[in-house]
Amino acid sequence: MTRVTLVGLGAIGREVFKALTSKTSLRVVAVADPAFAGQDAGAVCGVAPTGVVVVTGVEEAFAVPSDVALVLTTSGTAEMVPIVARAAEHHLHVVSSCEDLAFAELSTPEHAHRIDELARAAGIVVLGTGVNPGFVMDRLPLALAGACVAVRGARVERVVDASRRREPLRAKVGADLTVAEFEAGVAARRLGHRGLPESCRLLARGLGLSLDEVRSSIAPVVASVIDPRPGIAPGRVAGLRQSAVGLAGGRELVRLELEMSVGAPDPHDRVVLDSDPPLSVLIEGGTHGDRGTVGTIVNAIAAVRTGTPGLRHIDELALFGIVT
Amino acid sequence: MTRVTLVGLGAIGREVFKALTSKTSLRVVAVADPAFAGQDAGAVCGVAPTGVVVVTGVEEAFAVPSDVALVLTTSGTAEMVPIVARAAEHHLHVVSSCEDLAFAELSTPEHAHRIDELARAAGIVVLGTGVNPGFVMDRLPLALAGACVAVRGARVERVVDASRRREPLRAKVGADLTVAEFEAGVAARRLGHRGLPESCRLLARGLGLSLDEVRSSIAPVVASVIDPRPGIAPGRVAGLRQSAVGLAGGRELVRLELEMSVGAPDPHDRVVLDSDPPLSVLIEGGTHGDRGTVGTIVNAIAAVRTGTPGLRHIDELALFGIVT
Repeated sequence: MTRVTLVGLGAIGREVFKALTSKTSLRVVAVADPAFAGQDAGAVCGVAPTGVVVVTGVEEAFAVPSDVALVLTTSGTAEMVPIVARAAEHHLHVVSSCEDLAFAELSTPEHAHRIDELARAAGIVVLGTGVNPGFVMDRLPLALAGACVAVRGARVERVVDASRRREPLRAKVGADLTVAEFEAGVAARRLGHRGLPESCRLLARGLGLSLDEVRSSIAPVVASVIDPRPGIAPGRVAGLRQSAVGLAGGRELVRLELEMSVGAPDPHDRVVLDSDPPLSVLIEGGTHGDRGTVGTIVNAIAAVRTGTPGLRHIDELALFGIVT
Repeated sequence: MTRVTLVGLGAIGREVFKALTSKTSLRVVAVADPAFAGQDAGAVCGVAPTGVVVVTGVEEAFAVPSDVALVLTTSGTAEMVPIVARAAEHHLHVVSSCEDLAFAELSTPEHAHRIDELARAAGIVVLGTGVNPGFVMDRLPLALAGACVAVRGARVERVVDASRRREPLRAKVGADLTVAEFEAGVAARRLGHRGLPESCRLLARGLGLSLDEVRSSIAPVVASVIDPRPGIAPGRVAGLRQSAVGLAGGRELVRLELEMSVGAPDPHDRVVLDSDPPLSVLIEGGTHGDRGTVGTIVNAIAAVRTGTPGLRHIDELALFGIVT
C-alpha cells in the first residue's frame, strides 16, 4: 500500500483524487488546497466522503506520514522549490504536473539545481510529467526510439479539437478572441500552451541530438469562410498553432507542432522518427489531454519509488504500465 | 565509456556488433563465438578490423573486464543459467535476445528464480528483450498505458511481410511448405515464433490484469487463387498466424495476433487499449524485426546500468531513448 498526499484540487487535482480512490494499491492520506480547507476531500471531488479533510497548505499536509506527494498547483519551477524543500524534510517523493519542471534546466537552471540537490540529499525522486510535456511529445517518441539503432531526427504533431475539451482549454487557446486580443494575450503570457521547448530539449537529449537552439512560435488559427469553425465567427480566433523547432548547424533535427483549436479537423497525435528502422506512429483521435495527464501523474507513483534520487526526467524512470 | 562484451555472432549478433562500433559511448572489449574464433570481429561482421579477436566461449570473453554482456545465442532460459552464473562472477550486467527470458517465470520458473538469485547476489541486472517479445506486444502497449487512468483490456496485432525479410524468417514461418509439412514442423517446434505467451503475461501484469490462462494458437496461411502470394503456389504455405489470448473468468482481456507470411497485405503494428482515455495506435509498415531487435538490445545497455539488481522485465527499467 502506497500512501499518497495530494496538493491542489483544481480541475485536474479533483480528477486525480477520484482516480486515486479507485486504486487498491494506493491510499490518500492527506489533501491540501486553501480553497477547500475543512471540507471532506471526497465531497469536494464529487465522490463519497473519504474521511480525509482538506488542509490549507503543504506544511500541514506533509506532516501526515506518506510516501509520494502529487503537486498540481503550478506551472513554474520557482514555486516548486519551497514545496520540494518541505517534501524533502518529510522524505516524500514528488510527482508534479508543473510543465516547466519536466525539463527545468531549460528556463531555470538554478532552481533545477536546487531541487536536484534537495532531492539527492533526502533520497527522494522529483518528477515533472503530464500528457504534454511528459508524454506525447517526449516520452512516447523516446519509447519508440528504444527500438532504433540510430535516430537522425524527429517530428511530432498533435492536433486537439478544443470544442471537445473543457472550458479552460478554450480560454487558454484564445477561442473567440479577435486577432488583436489574441496577440495581446500571447504577449502577456495569458495564452498559449506551456512546455513545448521543454519537450523539444528532452526529446533531443534522449535521442543524443545536440541542439544549438530551440525556436518557438505561436500563431492564431482564424476562422474563415474556407476554414469555418463551429460557433466562431469568421475573422475571429478559433485557437492556436505552436511549434518548437530544435536546430543544429542551421538544420532542423526536432520539430514539434501543436494545434489546439475549436473544430480542428482530424484530431490526432503523430510521431515520425527519421531513424533506422524508420518509425511512423499515429494515435487515432489523439491522446485526451486531461485524462492523459491524470493517468501519467497517477502511474508515476510506482516509478518514482524505484528511481535514483534526484530531479529526474521522464526518460530516467521505468514509466510503463498502470498503477492499480 | 561503457565496455561491452558480445556473445554470439549470428545474423543478429553481427548487426549488433556493427551498431556497437558506431556508438561513441560504447567500446566492444570482447566477442565470443566458436564459429569465428581467432578471427577479427570487425572482419567477421563486414566492417573494418577492430583489433578484437573472437574467442570461443564466455569463459574467455567474460575474463576481459567489461560492464555489460550482450548474449545472442539462445531462445531458451535453461541455456542462459550457466551464462548468467559466469557473468555474475565477473559482475557483468546481461542483456539477451533470449525470447523465453523476457518473462522466464512462465515456462521455467525454477530457472527464472535461479537467475534472479544470481543477479541479486552479484548486483547485476539481467534482461531479456528484442522487438517481439520485448517491444511491439509488451513494452509499447505498456508505455501507452502509462498515460491511462484505467485499462480494461488490450489488443495488439502485428503483420509482417516475410518476403521483405531475410531468409531465416521465411524458413521459420514455413514458407513454401505443404500444409502437412507445416503441421509436422509446428509439432516438432521447428516452426513458429517464440514469445507470444511471454508478451501476453508481461502485458497483463503491467496492466494489472489477472489472467486465469493464456491460450496459444498457430495456423498456416495458405496461398490460394483468392489470396495469391508472390512465389508461393496455391495450396502451399505462405506463412503463419499465431495468437496468444489471455483470459480471466472466460473473458478475453488480452489478445495478441501475429501474422508473418510471404506477401502479407498491409504490414503494420497496431495497439488498441480498451482504456480511459482510449488509445489506438498504428505503426505504419510495422517495426522492422531485425533492426528493431538490434536497437532494443543496444539501447538496453544504458538502462541495465541504472536498474535494480535481479532478473528484470522490460517494464522495470528506464528503456527510453537511444544509446549514442
